[in-house]
Amino acid sequence: MKLVRYGKTGQEEPGLIDENGVLRDLSGHVKDINGAALSDAKLARIAALDVEDLHIVDGTPRFGPCVADVGKFMCIGLNYSDHAAETGASIPEHPILFMKATSAIVGPDDTVSLPRGSEKSDWEVELAVVIGKTAKYVSVDDALDHVAGYCIVNDVSERHFQTALSGNWTKGKSCDTFGPIGPWLVTRDEIEDPQNLDMTLDVNGKRMQTGNTKTMIFSVAEIIAHLSTLFTLHPGDVISTGTPPGVGLGMKPNPVFLKSGDVMELHIEGLGTQRQNVVMDT
Amino acid sequence: MKLVRYGKTGQEEPGLIDENGVLRDLSGHVKDINGAALSDAKLARIAALDVEDLHIVDGTPRFGPCVADVGKFMCIGLNYSDHAAETGASIPEHPILFMKATSAIVGPDDTVSLPRGSEKSDWEVELAVVIGKTAKYVSVDDALDHVAGYCIVNDVSERHFQTALSGNWTKGKSCDTFGPIGPWLVTRDEIEDPQNLDMTLDVNGKRMQTGNTKTMIFSVAEIIAHLSTLFTLHPGDVISTGTPPGVGLGMKPNPVFLKSGDVMELHIEGLGTQRQNVVMDT
Repeated sequence: MKLVRYGKTGQEEPGLIDENGVLRDLSGHVKDINGAALSDAKLARIAALDVEDLHIVDGTPRFGPCVADVGKFMCIGLNYSDHAAETGASIPEHPILFMKATSAIVGPDDTVSLPRGSEKSDWEVELAVVIGKTAKYVSVDDALDHVAGYCIVNDVSERHFQTALSGNWTKGKSCDTFGPIGPWLVTRDEIEDPQNLDMTLDVNGKRMQTGNTKTMIFSVAEIIAHLSTLFTLHPGDVISTGTPPGVGLGMKPNPVFLKSGDVMELHIEGLGTQRQNVVMDT
Repeated sequence: MKLVRYGKTGQEEPGLIDENGVLRDLSGHVKDINGAALSDAKLARIAALDVEDLHIVDGTPRFGPCVADVGKFMCIGLNYSDHAAETGASIPEHPILFMKATSAIVGPDDTVSLPRGSEKSDWEVELAVVIGKTAKYVSVDDALDHVAGYCIVNDVSERHFQTALSGNWTKGKSCDTFGPIGPWLVTRDEIEDPQNLDMTLDVNGKRMQTGNTKTMIFSVAEIIAHLSTLFTLHPGDVISTGTPPGVGLGMKPNPVFLKSGDVMELHIEGLGTQRQNVVMDT
């Protein structure tokens, strides 16, 4: 299933995209697409509905983030061998974890607003995992049973804030609007192999990132197992699993960064497309 | 006012501690102590109640975290000049920010459970700030107007997870139960000067940390102003502002770390006392 949240910011309704790409209303069956709705049993109940009975939504409403009430917004850094090579970084021994503030979360096509003083804002297309079942001390073999589904995240990053402001990476990762999530939460049954998904990111129509999740250093299952030794993963938590080559910081001969008026378009196989306009905070 | 949340985990009721130290029920007047209840106007409405009309709570219930629905749990590292000296670190140019997972939050006297494999878990008594009013691009002069109140945080930290697992500090800071908050949310009118509060932490009755918020490198107001240039601070967000000297990692001749059976007791002037038993995850 492709689950969505649609409508104005803060007033989103739950919906699904049917096999013909038509948006249908789920509000009579589930309160919201959040941790409480993502257990296998709850998802099976939605899957058992007759799609034809669900009201077709009029018009083309905005999509909100495809999951609400995110508790932890975790990101894995330098998780693609080809991206690590691009940045000159060595291969990490364990998954590199940092947090993105949940207040950075916006819809997949919402405007990305660069903070005052930003000169080095960058893009990162990423496969994200949405947790469906509480996970603590789980094995790699059992890890994917704890996944509700997958979606796209743009891990927008201010490189100066990230590295030069005496903080952990969090400072450059947590600016308002720096976490577009969606458009769809695609349930795990629809993604045969999360380790073989093509992904791209264009800026102003020019292809900047091209990758495939098969070059991940740590697989989705390995990441979940590792994080679950540190703390409990709760339903509705989101883990963004790192970005392939082609970020602005790695451009030759000179880095390229976002500016007002730019348009980013992100795509991952089976997970849809995001498109964001870029503006500068006034 | 001293606002509290009392009762079983996940079922806490709002209350206040009156001038005689008696716990009174606020559930008829506010749904919970969270961001929605912390505006100046909402707090003024509670302050205007006749305390004698509030039902006295029977017995001695558990205290929960003194603020619910925390969006961002931010921490400032190495923010005491005497603690920086203790660890051999240089004075940072900007406040060092890292995130603690909100899933680490527990009540002030709840058990602290060390994760499997932990050999280097440590204590950190800290003054925390609870945001009451949305803050973005605020000046140092205006910063404290955005504070609802203050409380104690024990920024429990697994030093090996923090520094040796290829992550940002987040890995060692976010374990379940590593964020006791409370016992009271003391409204800012009761704290004349947040930069002159004595603080202590004892382990098994032995004084380990002794400090005063006057040796902070970045003041509470400076921290709020800085963070608000990065992202929006929302009501209910918590900022823990760093720890004074005396952490286990800094002990001479050898570091000392927490073990099952230990008891931590934390105190900050005007903000009450926390007391946690330590166990090891099985």
